[in-house]
Amino acid sequence: MKFLVAGVGAMGTRFALKLKQAGNDVTVVDGWDLRLKSLKKDGLCANLDGQEVVEHVPAYGQTELPNNLRFDVVLFLTKSMQLEQMVKDLLPNFDDHTMALCLMNGIGHEQTLEKYLSKEQVFLGNTMWTAQMTRPDHVLLEDDGSCELSNVVPGEPQASQAKQLVEVLDKAGLKCHLLADPRYSVFRKGCVNGTLNTLCTLFECNLEEFSKTSHAHKMVVEVVKEFAAVGAKEGINLDVDEAVHHVEDCYRVIGAHYPSMYQDLVKNNRRTEVDYINGYVASHGKKYGLKTPYCTLLTQEVHTKEDLQHAK
Amino acid sequence: MKFLVAGVGAMGTRFALKLKQAGNDVTVVDGWDLRLKSLKKDGLCANLDGQEVVEHVPAYGQTELPNNLRFDVVLFLTKSMQLEQMVKDLLPNFDDHTMALCLMNGIGHEQTLEKYLSKEQVFLGNTMWTAQMTRPDHVLLEDDGSCELSNVVPGEPQASQAKQLVEVLDKAGLKCHLLADPRYSVFRKGCVNGTLNTLCTLFECNLEEFSKTSHAHKMVVEVVKEFAAVGAKEGINLDVDEAVHHVEDCYRVIGAHYPSMYQDLVKNNRRTEVDYINGYVASHGKKYGLKTPYCTLLTQEVHTKEDLQHAK
Repeated sequence: MKFLVAGVGAMGTRFALKLKQAGNDVTVVDGWDLRLKSLKKDGLCANLDGQEVVEHVPAYGQTELPNNLRFDVVLFLTKSMQLEQMVKDLLPNFDDHTMALCLMNGIGHEQTLEKYLSKEQVFLGNTMWTAQMTRPDHVLLEDDGSCELSNVVPGEPQASQAKQLVEVLDKAGLKCHLLADPRYSVFRKGCVNGTLNTLCTLFECNLEEFSKTSHAHKMVVEVVKEFAAVGAKEGINLDVDEAVHHVEDCYRVIGAHYPSMYQDLVKNNRRTEVDYINGYVASHGKKYGLKTPYCTLLTQEVHTKEDLQHAK
Repeated sequence: MKFLVAGVGAMGTRFALKLKQAGNDVTVVDGWDLRLKSLKKDGLCANLDGQEVVEHVPAYGQTELPNNLRFDVVLFLTKSMQLEQMVKDLLPNFDDHTMALCLMNGIGHEQTLEKYLSKEQVFLGNTMWTAQMTRPDHVLLEDDGSCELSNVVPGEPQASQAKQLVEVLDKAGLKCHLLADPRYSVFRKGCVNGTLNTLCTLFECNLEEFSKTSHAHKMVVEVVKEFAAVGAKEGINLDVDEAVHHVEDCYRVIGAHYPSMYQDLVKNNRRTEVDYINGYVASHGKKYGLKTPYCTLLTQEVHTKEDLQHAK
């Protein structure tokens, strides 16, 4: 299958590398000059489960991709705030058959994609893999994970296309499952990001360290309840207990992990995706007349930390 | 006047030093061995507005004060969580004429004092002075400030006693004012501590740095509203706008200051008084059926930070 991976930070690198290793045709595009330079020169370099690996793939800046190139799938793995510009820049490379697959953290990305593409083209899901950029030219890939996706609009041919996508990703070792309801899954993953990413970033700790603090469970429950309340207004009936369990299961599975938001702000002094996670719940809660004080305060706090650090 | 200063940390040292310099009879008592050792050996040592000063006063461990000593005033300036044990230990030194003056951070201390003393003996207020313990044997006293107090129960002789206390403190250069309603003043000061102490501790910044962040005002307003809501249930009608202004005026007056909670947790790795500040609002809000999510989450977050640092 012919893939364009749009955004080859840590997670994009995992997907591009695995897809390429499985024999797919992979091209990558990125907006960060320093990263792009190393991709062009040295390819995708990573430590994959303890082994140093390199894969050479065509790499382009997001405004320099030739307009005549076409892909079966454009896989979006940018940071949330970069998605809209990325879609705009890649629009010339889409035709009616191109599938747009978004596995990014954050809620509401399908609405951004649907501004520019037909809903039938959009495939949505999330990933529980971890990935960490150790340097602009190197990524660390450890821990076990999985991903899941589905078509956004029911019917054919998109249901069959979703199945095909799942098969290709699964064959590439990305442990991919077909979802019944992709938006449910995005909200459920949002609960992980809205608790562990946000709190581990504020407290500069990993998942396991956070898990051992005396108020961790109470904070997780309150945040998840707010995600569920906003989800309910959008037709998504999140099971709060199951979602809390899903969050807390991460302690066991990837306890030593520092979440991507920690990597962004604490490690690389970059502004975070919090507006697309807790901030989504806060702003949409407000729209629906719901109180979402935990998500609101956590969003304000992450921005306060960004401000104090002069994050870029 | 014959003072016993109970708790000679940073703030206790300021008061003991100034009262002694103004010619009062001052004795001090403290529960921290290392501090006490230096008080006994070297006296009250401080940098007061740029000048190194020393005053020698009788100093006792809080369980070793001779029972036959009597004082006109016992001035409580311990940490909140140490107050009850301090009162118990000093009970033999109280007679019916001894005034108990509490100028500590935190809400509800008069209830602790009234468990052991008659309400008529209790005088309540707060201080806007700053003080910082640089070492167990040295305190840094800079910035301008003031304090205020009143009798808790109206009537005589306590109203006259309160006036006398104000005069003595004012004469000692502590810029003391008589309050109309001491509990109003305690809640109003609580707004300062519940915003600036807590948030500067979480973000490890000073007041001015915090003031420049983009969400500072919004967070301050929400926290002050919760203090006001709980205050209203206790008969205290806090003026929210005025209290917010009072909080934000601190940026101008003592912007370079790192609050006492920061000093406790960030600098000295000690557990904080948060349960007596935001935690008071959270727990009493719950009792009154009020929602106080900002104070609740902030309390949980400070405890999380304490847990992660293994603060003592």
